[in-house]
Amino acid sequence: MKIVVLKFGGTSVGDLNRIKKVSKIIISYIKKKYKVIVVSSAMSGVTNDLIIKSKKITQNFDKAEYDVLVSSGEQISCALISGYLKSLGYNSKSYMGWQVPIITDLNYSDSKIIKIKTNQIMKHLKIGGIAVVAGFQGVNIENRVTTLGRGASDYSAILLSKYFKAKKCVIYTDVEGVMTTDPKLISQATKIKEISYEEMLEMSSLGSKVMQTNSVQDARLNRIDVHVRSSFTNRSGTLITKKNNIKNNKIIRGISFTKNDAKITLVGVKDRPGIAASIFEPLSKNNINVDMVVQNISANGSETDITFTVKNEDLKKSVKTLKKNNLFKYKKILVDDKVSKVSIIGVGMITTPGVTYRMFKSLSKKKINILVISTSEIKISVLIKRSNVKKAVAALHKEFNLSKV
Amino acid sequence: MKIVVLKFGGTSVGDLNRIKKVSKIIISYIKKKYKVIVVSSAMSGVTNDLIIKSKKITQNFDKAEYDVLVSSGEQISCALISGYLKSLGYNSKSYMGWQVPIITDLNYSDSKIIKIKTNQIMKHLKIGGIAVVAGFQGVNIENRVTTLGRGASDYSAILLSKYFKAKKCVIYTDVEGVMTTDPKLISQATKIKEISYEEMLEMSSLGSKVMQTNSVQDARLNRIDVHVRSSFTNRSGTLITKKNNIKNNKIIRGISFTKNDAKITLVGVKDRPGIAASIFEPLSKNNINVDMVVQNISANGSETDITFTVKNEDLKKSVKTLKKNNLFKYKKILVDDKVSKVSIIGVGMITTPGVTYRMFKSLSKKKINILVISTSEIKISVLIKRSNVKKAVAALHKEFNLSKV
Repeated sequence: MKIVVLKFGGTSVGDLNRIKKVSKIIISYIKKKYKVIVVSSAMSGVTNDLIIKSKKITQNFDKAEYDVLVSSGEQISCALISGYLKSLGYNSKSYMGWQVPIITDLNYSDSKIIKIKTNQIMKHLKIGGIAVVAGFQGVNIENRVTTLGRGASDYSAILLSKYFKAKKCVIYTDVEGVMTTDPKLISQATKIKEISYEEMLEMSSLGSKVMQTNSVQDARLNRIDVHVRSSFTNRSGTLITKKNNIKNNKIIRGISFTKNDAKITLVGVKDRPGIAASIFEPLSKNNINVDMVVQNISANGSETDITFTVKNEDLKKSVKTLKKNNLFKYKKILVDDKVSKVSIIGVGMITTPGVTYRMFKSLSKKKINILVISTSEIKISVLIKRSNVKKAVAALHKEFNLSKV
Repeated sequence: MKIVVLKFGGTSVGDLNRIKKVSKIIISYIKKKYKVIVVSSAMSGVTNDLIIKSKKITQNFDKAEYDVLVSSGEQISCALISGYLKSLGYNSKSYMGWQVPIITDLNYSDSKIIKIKTNQIMKHLKIGGIAVVAGFQGVNIENRVTTLGRGASDYSAILLSKYFKAKKCVIYTDVEGVMTTDPKLISQATKIKEISYEEMLEMSSLGSKVMQTNSVQDARLNRIDVHVRSSFTNRSGTLITKKNNIKNNKIIRGISFTKNDAKITLVGVKDRPGIAASIFEPLSKNNINVDMVVQNISANGSETDITFTVKNEDLKKSVKTLKKNNLFKYKKILVDDKVSKVSIIGVGMITTPGVTYRMFKSLSKKKINILVISTSEIKISVLIKRSNVKKAVAALHKEFNLSKV
């Protein structure tokens, strides 16, 4: 059977006209002889309204009942899609999590899928039916409704693709795909046609606008090819797939950047074994996420400077935490909340020497000073002054030919 | 086990403050050592909004998906009640139709309950839990969601009372109970403390403001005592029970009246066997409901006058249908759309002679002309000029001492 899983996000089913529009997309697959499993999110705004209700009634709303409450959003969108498809003569049926069933663990509000039973929907697909499945929800062995965490309709779609051995999984959203960089910053940004799971995971904000990071990871683990595209246009989107499937193997796939980093430098720290742990442990205990870290080699062997980045919103708390410490000594703390991290991402860099050099040279040509560097196998990140971000991204976008599709 | 079923209508759970208020009512029963089963309607307005959505998307919305759609309303109200109760430390659990399960027939949008399985909820009640059950919905043997028809949360409550052998069934609504007559017309109207099922069924508009007629019938068949009362005050309401339970056996329990009747008289109809059928068959085929009917004895044996009432909105269609006929002959049609039916209702009249006489005499004293009369065992109805309604109801209310509680 040629099964396709089509997932529609909240804006794609945002109003009744949108529901008619996605129904037409669904029908286009039926006409291409696909067996169609639809996964729908709640109509945009609905889930938020329900969450606000739960918070207004009590700040201490029960998680299990929260799941009953918010899962009603997908019930509405799925019934509307399925009811409309039936009115057009298609044999459509909506399936809530408990009807599939999509069996989850016993956690509430952030459950994981344990197993999806396929026989009910398979029977329906075999007779030419369309299955419209509620995303974001499941049922546990205690026969209680569970939800998979916010945005987890992507997760539902990936796991349905796995259990139904779908030929195709298409995530319809309100953006056209993954871009080489933010087109709001650089007008030359282009849509990436193909990207590997690993690259997608490193794309951070560029990728997360398109698909939830956890779900990319699930797609990677289950080797599900995912097409992300817009339900608002007919243009093709981005294929997220395994490295070996990608024909157009560019060295660099995209450039991401942050807008809310802050740099902290501890000057003149007494150097001794375990000093880094002493510094970062209290930050971690206070839920402060430390990103880039550099420790300068101490000139005289007894003192060192340690620089790292945190999110802007954590800056005050970080400094307060560091000042409270009595585990290590330092001369002073310097902070800079006007920095940004710019990263180039691409699996191609593993096999291509000189990428780092090209990056640094491009930036130096533009007189952009690099404050901190960090590298992984498929990503090189530099910390620079925030005012230089546009210039830096433009230079790198040109250097690595990202405007050419 | 001392089980109570508490049903809350849409206005009773109309907003978050109302949900807090009904939670307090629920807790008051827990404090009185009741095992509590709550049945909730959707928050007022929610079901209508969903119905409008289904109609806007297509006039031909599938009934099965309609049920999936509108049943989400009770899911929201039940989750909010149950989540709030849990935040207050009570062991509450919401139950959708499929979780109880409340098993219905295979019809959609107007399903009947076949069976309610009690073991799941019973287990929960035994450990001191509160069960918050979604009214108006069930599940059929095909594992599809069904709904029981509009207003059918009353039906859910009655049948839950039956299957759980509840000691008490309380219908909380936005009126204080059943009134002797409409207090908007007659300020002396008082609340009826006790009423028999049969009287309640005959109370038409007076009763239907309080409880759905079908559900009164279900309560009667299953001998469930039903208390109807307001969730907005602490005042006691009306007990609907079997005749023999009623202590205060008044002759007349209440006075109902209509506002939209019309009278049609066919003058000079050629009299022959089967003539009435010839007249009423085409009306019935056009879905026109005929209420009171009188046929005058024909003076010369060959001609007769036939008078009957229809709803005002059916008057034009009725006259058109009658004029189109070729099954019977008549001289002319007279119509009067300014008439009302006034009825006195009471099981006591069966054993009390002279009730009819007292009714007619009261009206005649006020110079009110009776146009048509119809009687049943527990109800006497007269058709009068609409302008006389207030005078008539006031006279009868006084005649039968209805102001005395």
